[in-house]
Amino acid sequence: MKYLGYYNGSWGPLEEMTVPMNDRACWFGDGVYDAGPCCGGRFFAMDEHVDRFFRNAAALRITMPVTREELKDTLRRLARKMDDEELLVYAQVTRGTGIRNHLFPEGAGNLWITMIPKEIDEGLHPIRLITREDTRFLHCNIKTLNLLPSVMAAQAAAEAGCDEAVLYREGGRVTECAHSNVHILKDGTLYTAPADNLILPGIARAHLLRACEALGIPYREEPFRLEELFAADEVLVTSSTNPCLHADRIDGRAVGMRDGARFERLREYLVRELRTAAD
Amino acid sequence: MKYLGYYNGSWGPLEEMTVPMNDRACWFGDGVYDAGPCCGGRFFAMDEHVDRFFRNAAALRITMPVTREELKDTLRRLARKMDDEELLVYAQVTRGTGIRNHLFPEGAGNLWITMIPKEIDEGLHPIRLITREDTRFLHCNIKTLNLLPSVMAAQAAAEAGCDEAVLYREGGRVTECAHSNVHILKDGTLYTAPADNLILPGIARAHLLRACEALGIPYREEPFRLEELFAADEVLVTSSTNPCLHADRIDGRAVGMRDGARFERLREYLVRELRTAAD
Repeated sequence: MKYLGYYNGSWGPLEEMTVPMNDRACWFGDGVYDAGPCCGGRFFAMDEHVDRFFRNAAALRITMPVTREELKDTLRRLARKMDDEELLVYAQVTRGTGIRNHLFPEGAGNLWITMIPKEIDEGLHPIRLITREDTRFLHCNIKTLNLLPSVMAAQAAAEAGCDEAVLYREGGRVTECAHSNVHILKDGTLYTAPADNLILPGIARAHLLRACEALGIPYREEPFRLEELFAADEVLVTSSTNPCLHADRIDGRAVGMRDGARFERLREYLVRELRTAAD
Repeated sequence: MKYLGYYNGSWGPLEEMTVPMNDRACWFGDGVYDAGPCCGGRFFAMDEHVDRFFRNAAALRITMPVTREELKDTLRRLARKMDDEELLVYAQVTRGTGIRNHLFPEGAGNLWITMIPKEIDEGLHPIRLITREDTRFLHCNIKTLNLLPSVMAAQAAAEAGCDEAVLYREGGRVTECAHSNVHILKDGTLYTAPADNLILPGIARAHLLRACEALGIPYREEPFRLEELFAADEVLVTSSTNPCLHADRIDGRAVGMRDGARFERLREYLVRELRTAAD
């Protein structure tokens, strides 16, 4: 299968799948999701993704309809039906089904899965960014379906001929991108926003920090600002299917590209890890 | 019909209706909605609701798949299929259908409609409130499907044995409730938060302000704080199907109920307007 959709035990071609109108995704975006790459039948960092997925559901008091092991078995079974070698595997759980009412319905959530072809971007070519005010809610640490500000920011980036939007809060504090984390290298140290309620603690971000440790690159989890972003030696962007990109322009201004050796060590380490890690 | 669902021209019993898994409501909450009462076949403030609906779609650059007149005709046609006299009529438009991708898909949006029985609350009995930090995004003036903080706040209110949650921003500034606007009467003047990006400009709120004008009650659209909420002569809560409620307890403390005559004039005016206004 090329594009697969799954909903509470039923599956088929994604474009033919339907869901109840009363699923709470439809009225409230009342759910959480997770997503990661699967290459050649191997799921990268599967336990980290599954743990985060369950943790986020619990944070919103959504009852998972399956156990961790049942979910992993289902993902493995569905992946075997797919035509392509490189996939994006996506799962979400929504807070059940019922006539629209803010109050929680009875019972367990609904499980949604999709699998689509998606090639890993190995980061060989620099990307371009825009900056945009971060107007999101104060629960950005939870991977929810309330994604309108990210949709609008990603669209603005594309219309500016760019690949991602870097978001900043009041005072110019950089948080993350529309659907990635952002980091800077300066004088040999990597800086990344702390994992508070203003950013999603990316699994690629965690792997980047572990790569820094493995490679002897010091890192600091502390806020940085737009001025530091523009003055960085390298601007790094990471997400599950883009493990280590760097940017050469932000808002049309040349940035970064001044510590290529250190970026290349990280990039090479992270791409190799993604390509070779066991399930 | 008791509960009706409509999606892009198809309609039927709401609990049997399905939608494509790839509707962007499902992945991003990428849509806007509006809702209002219909009593005895008459839609209250229909043009105000329809205008706001189209304005909100435009704010998010969602292309409406119908004209205002087509939407109104469809609503009138569907309402005639309903068994009950008092209905909540709900419409939403989502940003089309496609494989999950933050970027806008081509084409017009998808139109969703539901109709369910819903009695008007005439406000004869005081309600109870809790307070809760307002952690929502900075687009609360747009009636979007990104409603998780409202869901969590409404549930917290219910679990505390209350009817609604009053939200406040940093410094104790009161914004609105989880799914209503909130106002206070103090020394004969009505205070309500200004219609900026922190509140939804409720149609019931607009009617309340017009009622104040008609009844010679001065009003001020300016921020007020939690201290003023607790010290108010009356605490009013309004929404489309609850045109004028007042509260007697917040967080378990007795509040308001000290300007019953003025509250009663407003309540009586607004309920009569809702019950008698032409379509």
